[in-house]
Amino acid sequence: MIVYFDNAATTKPIDEVIEAVNFGMREYFGNPSSLHRLGLEADRKLLSCREAIAGTINAIASEIYFTSGGSEGNNFILKSFGKKGSHIITTKFEHPSVLNTLKELKDMGAEVTELTLDSEGRIDIEELKRSIKKETVLVSIMHVNNEVGTIQNLLEIGKTIKELSSRARFHVDAVQSYGKIEIDVNRYKIDFLTASGHKIHGPKGVGFCFIRKGLNPKALISGGGQESGFRSGTENVPSVIGMTEAAVIAHKSIKENFDMVKELKRYFISLIDDLDNKRINSKEEEYISPYILNVSFPGIKAEVLLHLLEEKDIFVSTGSACSSRGGKGKYVLKAIGLNEKDSEGAIRFSFSRFSTKEEIDYTIEELKKALTFLRRVRK
Amino acid sequence: MIVYFDNAATTKPIDEVIEAVNFGMREYFGNPSSLHRLGLEADRKLLSCREAIAGTINAIASEIYFTSGGSEGNNFILKSFGKKGSHIITTKFEHPSVLNTLKELKDMGAEVTELTLDSEGRIDIEELKRSIKKETVLVSIMHVNNEVGTIQNLLEIGKTIKELSSRARFHVDAVQSYGKIEIDVNRYKIDFLTASGHKIHGPKGVGFCFIRKGLNPKALISGGGQESGFRSGTENVPSVIGMTEAAVIAHKSIKENFDMVKELKRYFISLIDDLDNKRINSKEEEYISPYILNVSFPGIKAEVLLHLLEEKDIFVSTGSACSSRGGKGKYVLKAIGLNEKDSEGAIRFSFSRFSTKEEIDYTIEELKKALTFLRRVRK
Repeated sequence: MIVYFDNAATTKPIDEVIEAVNFGMREYFGNPSSLHRLGLEADRKLLSCREAIAGTINAIASEIYFTSGGSEGNNFILKSFGKKGSHIITTKFEHPSVLNTLKELKDMGAEVTELTLDSEGRIDIEELKRSIKKETVLVSIMHVNNEVGTIQNLLEIGKTIKELSSRARFHVDAVQSYGKIEIDVNRYKIDFLTASGHKIHGPKGVGFCFIRKGLNPKALISGGGQESGFRSGTENVPSVIGMTEAAVIAHKSIKENFDMVKELKRYFISLIDDLDNKRINSKEEEYISPYILNVSFPGIKAEVLLHLLEEKDIFVSTGSACSSRGGKGKYVLKAIGLNEKDSEGAIRFSFSRFSTKEEIDYTIEELKKALTFLRRVRK
Repeated sequence: MIVYFDNAATTKPIDEVIEAVNFGMREYFGNPSSLHRLGLEADRKLLSCREAIAGTINAIASEIYFTSGGSEGNNFILKSFGKKGSHIITTKFEHPSVLNTLKELKDMGAEVTELTLDSEGRIDIEELKRSIKKETVLVSIMHVNNEVGTIQNLLEIGKTIKELSSRARFHVDAVQSYGKIEIDVNRYKIDFLTASGHKIHGPKGVGFCFIRKGLNPKALISGGGQESGFRSGTENVPSVIGMTEAAVIAHKSIKENFDMVKELKRYFISLIDDLDNKRINSKEEEYISPYILNVSFPGIKAEVLLHLLEEKDIFVSTGSACSSRGGKGKYVLKAIGLNEKDSEGAIRFSFSRFSTKEEIDYTIEELKKALTFLRRVRK
């Protein structure tokens, strides 16, 4: 049995997506900027994708801009706010494409406030309120944390921002939530949102930004003026078609998938309940995504455990893929207060709607064997 | 008969490429940053692609960095030179992703010199020599112009830059030449080179930059530190595999293709030789790419002619796709001295290695009918 529990790093494209990309490459290869029919057809196809994507987050088509993925999206939105003297609020455990971009903006003279997180990764609304000031131009908060799964209360955050400031814009990195948890950009008062195709069984190298009508972020990629000037470069029509297919399919049964995965996570946790030396870093709570289960096994080196599981064809991660190589440290786990030992022994199991109880049974069996082996070796 | 003569705008992916992307999506979906086998296999595949691409331009694998395409590549390289007081040299007819990016750098305090072009689009080496000064940090010159096909003498330009400055770096936008005309980054003393997948029958949304070993341009997209920190974002492995397939196939017979297309262009020109009211803007010369044939039909509105040809399933363009919509004007043709009338009546036929004599026969037949019709209507 092959068990892929690393869906927060990337997902396997579904057949419908592979077919859609294929179809796009064959039938819509024209450059959407070309004046002839092949261009117009490609452009029209893009528009229909824009409409379909907009429908998934309660936006309108003209508010959807295609990008090459989540990192580009986050860089694009954030960098357009990097003026000297501007103030940006974020959290201590955002994705590196947010935190590293904000470091650059700090170097350019922007002020950045990183909100602290409680032991389960939630921000404190009172701290957010205290942090908003007249210089605040942007609040950038991820919807679901990629390592521990915390779901921020976007409704409350959006309401708070808009009550306290007419200037501050609200940006949401929704890479880990889009297609898994419902998002309503209007209800949540979101101004900018970033999403990615490859986290929802879509293609890699494609994503989108929602930009609320009337807002004009500065392009990160200048040139031919595609995407209304917000993102130049020949549009990647086949991948956009693939991502749209993935998005539409994911949203068709978003609630059912959520409940199913929630049940799986509950089942997983029930099976490790008897392990005495563990710490569950992403509990069963309504404010934690069921798609992510982060567990610490103190005294165990997570990477060693990962490789033992891998030998049994079980694929998990020790943190986000983006910070795994090069060992840039587990800043996410530290941000929610884990000590060194708990951080070192942390494994992330990330599920998909295709995960099964059988996969969990097999994983738990092998996990328990591996832990017994590792703890025996240590003695 | 369907005739696609808009290959400079974009090309149709070949079956091998579609197969390769397909294969990549199925077999290499893992995140190259993941520590487990699926990650390592994807990472190893990326490396083999890097090696193959490097081989096509006489570079080494560690000098190849994957991007989302040509516009991103140009923005990335140029923006890392955007310091106040720095001097950048370019030409008047670069791609918008270069010229518009340089406009932004000017606003930030950089000085930009735009070299003039002769009536066939060649720069004047003496003007280049006079323009290089101690503040010059970058010379950015496209290899083949996208609208008229001029091939710049990279050997001479590279030599000149390096003789006059130890500081100035040489960037080449090779989007229109890569895979069609041989490039040797060492022989031409190129420091940075930008290329794109979709111009060589590869996938859209993917490209690469060559960055000479030891150089450290500032990342445009920050984050997880992929691509040695030069380009963050989960690597688009399937598209990279597809682009590599396209590149390897194109380079296998790059000279034969060139000669074949040269013969086609010669044939095309011979067939319009008897038309008395025309101006060939990209002649048969060794310094003009055979893949591009730009012809003016004075007194004719190119867009009208384009649509008449389109009705006969012949797809051409009135300029670069990137500047067709929104009518940003034909700055390329103006830069080589065309008057308003010649600019207005200019059509670009851009060929591929799959173009045939039969397609040209059919095109000429319909072109002559359309011109007769349009000129009769005008009278």
